[in-house]
Amino acid sequence: MRIERVLVVDPLDGEYVGSVEAENGKIESVEADGEKPRAILMPAFIDVHTHGAVGVDFLDDEDWEKVEEFFHSQGVVTFFPTSVSTSFDRMVDFLERAERKGKLAHLEGPYISLEKKGAQNPEFIRKPTDEEIDELLKYGSLRTITLAPEVVEPSIVEKLESSGIRVSLGHSNATYEEAMRGYRAGARRITHFPNALRSLHHREIGISGAGLLHDFYLEIISDGIHVSPKMVELIFKIKGCDRIILITDSISATGLEDGEYELGGLKVFVEDGIARLEDGTLAGSTLTFSRAVKNFGEFTGADLRCLSKVSSYNAALHMGLEEKGRISEGFDADLVILDFDLNVLEVYSSGERVFPEG
Amino acid sequence: MRIERVLVVDPLDGEYVGSVEAENGKIESVEADGEKPRAILMPAFIDVHTHGAVGVDFLDDEDWEKVEEFFHSQGVVTFFPTSVSTSFDRMVDFLERAERKGKLAHLEGPYISLEKKGAQNPEFIRKPTDEEIDELLKYGSLRTITLAPEVVEPSIVEKLESSGIRVSLGHSNATYEEAMRGYRAGARRITHFPNALRSLHHREIGISGAGLLHDFYLEIISDGIHVSPKMVELIFKIKGCDRIILITDSISATGLEDGEYELGGLKVFVEDGIARLEDGTLAGSTLTFSRAVKNFGEFTGADLRCLSKVSSYNAALHMGLEEKGRISEGFDADLVILDFDLNVLEVYSSGERVFPEG
Repeated sequence: MRIERVLVVDPLDGEYVGSVEAENGKIESVEADGEKPRAILMPAFIDVHTHGAVGVDFLDDEDWEKVEEFFHSQGVVTFFPTSVSTSFDRMVDFLERAERKGKLAHLEGPYISLEKKGAQNPEFIRKPTDEEIDELLKYGSLRTITLAPEVVEPSIVEKLESSGIRVSLGHSNATYEEAMRGYRAGARRITHFPNALRSLHHREIGISGAGLLHDFYLEIISDGIHVSPKMVELIFKIKGCDRIILITDSISATGLEDGEYELGGLKVFVEDGIARLEDGTLAGSTLTFSRAVKNFGEFTGADLRCLSKVSSYNAALHMGLEEKGRISEGFDADLVILDFDLNVLEVYSSGERVFPEG
Repeated sequence: MRIERVLVVDPLDGEYVGSVEAENGKIESVEADGEKPRAILMPAFIDVHTHGAVGVDFLDDEDWEKVEEFFHSQGVVTFFPTSVSTSFDRMVDFLERAERKGKLAHLEGPYISLEKKGAQNPEFIRKPTDEEIDELLKYGSLRTITLAPEVVEPSIVEKLESSGIRVSLGHSNATYEEAMRGYRAGARRITHFPNALRSLHHREIGISGAGLLHDFYLEIISDGIHVSPKMVELIFKIKGCDRIILITDSISATGLEDGEYELGGLKVFVEDGIARLEDGTLAGSTLTFSRAVKNFGEFTGADLRCLSKVSSYNAALHMGLEEKGRISEGFDADLVILDFDLNVLEVYSSGERVFPEG
């Protein structure tokens, strides 16, 4: 497979016009040839936080392939199916399904704060036991978990991190000190910042302040609704390109019409693409990843190289996906071709074209 | 006058061991001579926001010289006596007094937001008339005014700024857009950030977000109470050395014992050095400037050169005091000698020693 005359955007090498050759799913060579580019080539997007799309909920449903196909059309090749707070049996069932389907999973809850539950079902929110954690660690599909550092003991955070599970702090009312206890135990990410977090106060900067002050990766839902465009700009000013990870937090309604849906056993009403519980609480998003990237560029003025970091490279680095997130020899040939307005034209997964199909 | 063998700290030239020679109130020469320094020499501190000290309130009382003497002992040579919201007659009386005493004055209110009044007397808070503004502009002693951009028309902000009055936004519930209306009209400072301001929310970043995002100078009360040490660290991370101006916001109780005092006709209770109204609202501070500088250094790890910016140079630059804030030929010989723990040893005003006296 060969892609020619594109503006290659690599998070480390930067931008240059050239060609990319792939063989056996890997990038075999990249070559700068200086011609006028016909399109942009970036590493395919990585979404570390998505609950589903096109009518499918990863936790409830089997047909993950239908979501995958939709995600391909949005430039995403790697995604982390994400649960919400649920019973232990259903968590295990979800992890088993991920294992069968060869996906890395994200457990969002249930070890979170009731006060900052957002759209999570309070019925299932609780503290973990050591036995539960040991059981979860048996599943190779578990790669990341969102938990609240004031709810979960640092010893458990340490155990997870040392077992290769990336702990993300979220749905949390943690003070600054409580958040830093999580940090010292190894947590280096914060889930959909600054949604469902104790807010920044000038006499107790809390987990939001910790996220801005220290080198946490921050997940951002750049739909302009969960976080205003100006707040995205401010976060970008503070954190720069290297510590932001764009996510969709998409729910099953994504890619479908407005209407009534479900999330973790709770009714969700989607109006003008905005998903809310009956009480108005935002309940995930219907954001697509390609829209997230466009928005982020518009809100911040970030250049293409920076966009490649926040849309794939940072996630790959943080999650330990060592062969993803770059356009360089030996990396997976997961690629997205975009026009100059950042619309998705073609997508490749391990060197195979997956969008458009056929 | 000659000061020898000190670590000269200039905001632009940086740090070097040397000697300073002054003549006729001006610095005549500075000389690097490389010896081991016996102390630190910095430009004397400038406090742009103080209501008084040692039992004297600038608005109510005449004995400003008593405050000045106390301020000298804290390293401050230039200070801006600051009013609170009061009647127009008393504002005029205050500006006349400043004129007689050769001081530049700061009017804090009354053109502020009732919702964010802090410890200001609501009885006097109101919108300005054009006639009032024209009257105020007759006083050369008026150099700066704190007002709320959602209360005062941009045309008035423009008129003030174009008349050489520095407008500081404060005691304000402004949205981001309202704050930026003030910015576009010329305002470039925010009063005691982020106290008495609409707080940062991730869907409406407000005036606090505007202050962090754009090149406003931010006044900071670094007593560790108005703003927590971690919040000071975060503001420093975002704004750097060039856009922070330390202030005391000190009231008449400063330098005295705990007890009952008054501010703008309201009772103030000072306990453990913390000044509050009866309802618990913080009411100015009892912070001294030398303590503010020490605290800021401790909270942020800022180096001496940076401390010289936030304690004098930035204020001088913003307020148009062109001959202050530097240790360089031709500048006013306003100097403070500090030990290596930043305790004030000696203070010079126009080359004359004013502390210790005699």
